[in-house]
Amino acid sequence: MDAAPRSEFTSRMAAFQEALGKQGVALALVRQAADLFYYAGAPVDGFLAVAPEAEPLLLVRRPQRRRLESPWATVFYQDLRELPALLARAGLEPRGPVGLELDVLPVAFFNRIKELLGPQTFQDVSPLIRRQRMVKSEYEIGQLRRAAAMVDQVHEQAPALLRPGLSELELSAALEYRLRALGHQGLVRVRTWDLEVFYGHVLSGLSGLEAAYIDTPSGGPGFSPAFPQGPSLKALAPGEPISIDLAACVNGYNVDMTRMYALGSLPEPAWEAWSAVTEIYAVFEAEARPGVMPGQIYHRIWDLVKARGLQEVFMGLEPDRVSFLGHGVGLELDELPLITARFPYPLAANMVLAFEPKLFLPEIGMVGLEDTGRVTDTGIDWLTHSPREITIV
Amino acid sequence: MDAAPRSEFTSRMAAFQEALGKQGVALALVRQAADLFYYAGAPVDGFLAVAPEAEPLLLVRRPQRRRLESPWATVFYQDLRELPALLARAGLEPRGPVGLELDVLPVAFFNRIKELLGPQTFQDVSPLIRRQRMVKSEYEIGQLRRAAAMVDQVHEQAPALLRPGLSELELSAALEYRLRALGHQGLVRVRTWDLEVFYGHVLSGLSGLEAAYIDTPSGGPGFSPAFPQGPSLKALAPGEPISIDLAACVNGYNVDMTRMYALGSLPEPAWEAWSAVTEIYAVFEAEARPGVMPGQIYHRIWDLVKARGLQEVFMGLEPDRVSFLGHGVGLELDELPLITARFPYPLAANMVLAFEPKLFLPEIGMVGLEDTGRVTDTGIDWLTHSPREITIV
Repeated sequence: MDAAPRSEFTSRMAAFQEALGKQGVALALVRQAADLFYYAGAPVDGFLAVAPEAEPLLLVRRPQRRRLESPWATVFYQDLRELPALLARAGLEPRGPVGLELDVLPVAFFNRIKELLGPQTFQDVSPLIRRQRMVKSEYEIGQLRRAAAMVDQVHEQAPALLRPGLSELELSAALEYRLRALGHQGLVRVRTWDLEVFYGHVLSGLSGLEAAYIDTPSGGPGFSPAFPQGPSLKALAPGEPISIDLAACVNGYNVDMTRMYALGSLPEPAWEAWSAVTEIYAVFEAEARPGVMPGQIYHRIWDLVKARGLQEVFMGLEPDRVSFLGHGVGLELDELPLITARFPYPLAANMVLAFEPKLFLPEIGMVGLEDTGRVTDTGIDWLTHSPREITIV
Repeated sequence: MDAAPRSEFTSRMAAFQEALGKQGVALALVRQAADLFYYAGAPVDGFLAVAPEAEPLLLVRRPQRRRLESPWATVFYQDLRELPALLARAGLEPRGPVGLELDVLPVAFFNRIKELLGPQTFQDVSPLIRRQRMVKSEYEIGQLRRAAAMVDQVHEQAPALLRPGLSELELSAALEYRLRALGHQGLVRVRTWDLEVFYGHVLSGLSGLEAAYIDTPSGGPGFSPAFPQGPSLKALAPGEPISIDLAACVNGYNVDMTRMYALGSLPEPAWEAWSAVTEIYAVFEAEARPGVMPGQIYHRIWDLVKARGLQEVFMGLEPDRVSFLGHGVGLELDELPLITARFPYPLAANMVLAFEPKLFLPEIGMVGLEDTGRVTDTGIDWLTHSPREITIV
């Protein structure tokens, strides 16, 4: 049910090989879990060796993966030092620049590979992998729809859980439990090596204003100095904005969604902020089309934010705001494209991104929304469908 | 309550500076989250700059961390390019080898730092950090005891949850929920850059025999090709060994523990295996003392395993076994020391490790135990206290 059809891998591989050829990479050694799953159908302890004009070869270290199902020929090894001989035997010894994922590969590991492969030059192939993975196939969009259905289903259960006195952590735990029982894999992959995320993110009232050490608009305070982000031990209270930001994950594919809740009532500025957020959504929906530069959308939205006098509180309290209004999602939560002022590529059909305009109201809290949608010729096709209204319990 | 006393940081820093001096490092730039929490009291987006003979300086990128509590002087920056000037202003411009955590720092990020710092040589300081962190302070052992109490408490609740037909995933979700509600931070830090772990790990019957792509004795099948490890959708059934392996985490400190359960009964070979496991524990308890080489313990245990004729099934099915019988735990789940044939340092007082002898019985499943304990002059002081007997429900 979950495994991608073989045609997925042949078309992904053809595009990858073409990109490698254009960049002048003689041999790429793909190593990172999400990239291996994307190109070879499984995360392994090993490498996928890809030359522009040859059959790919999967090299797997651990013997127990013998039953591994991959579309590509597979060889097994016990020690990294066997790598050059195995490549040579398959006619894949590099005769030019070697491509590695240099944004994630640690220096010590890279140095071992460099030593084994001799006097080659090395190129970072992560940018081209990330660009390829920006645009999703129909199969991938199907997987993302499954993840969207999961997060919609859990949000439907949220109102019944909300009550004054429940802590942010307790509510997060209850929501994570429901995600997990629906088949969340328990791990949300991110690419950024030092980005620490978790998938249940409940903030209420002033907790919503706490920025964190990670690059996200609403970091939250957490409940220990070891992990100062996410839900705290603060109890939910009537009259505060409560944000529930969940990352669902099905078969490796992540979808991100935020909804607002409140117990009893909300102060007037929170409603005004929510109305501004819906106007921001309307700008995004009107602007986001294939061929449009994310910077154009970014500036249109900022124009609206300034016209509404909200520039001090949009995407974080000044001067702590984050620079993106949306981010790609897929096998990683921090994919491309980004909706920023200077993202260098135009939108294209079947890019999938989480759009998350958020306003930070001093003395009140955070009010925002987040949905995951795909870019189409006729506009954004939202994958997440929960009602956008603030749910008053 | 959670923040470590200031004396922790001054003594950690003194030992670190001495080690840096001995290794000839002029300036270390500590960047990784667990290391920053250890030396500076907080994970930050930034660096802790440490020279052997100067006051450390914490450099923090994100402006919102202004309220950060750290024992060290702190400066803020917006762009990595400010780093050299900020170091110079503090009298910390490197006049010799620069130390970085090269086992975790990606190549692309390293290259940016290298460019900024000019013609320096670079040394990997992770080995000395990991060696320092092997030995825990009394404060740290107190934190680890809290994590141990958490995992004991959840195991106490496990029997009431077990019933035929419940899936491994459902049981994992229920246990994770309980951990989380008790204050589990939701994230288990590991050092190994490509090690993917999660904290609720329930396997039953033949699932226990499935090795995974990660380096652990009982990987488990998972339930999707995207994440082939951990609990599957298989239902618990009477007469099978059920292992519950949980990583508790309190204030950043991890404790690892495995217990066995069964519904109704277990076949005789499972009981024999469990009895062998308790004998293996006895060898470990008799051998593990300050000054003893882990290799000696490793071989004594293997001698027993061979004497019992269990060499084909110990620590994985031949030829898929893992090479360690125990691993350090602390701020990361994959700390030092390791109980392997060739680990190069002797045990020392207040090392804390998870000991996990596990037997893999064909057609039956995995039978093993895991406890976290600290090394003392008089023997192992176990931090986890749940009864070791197999719980029959």
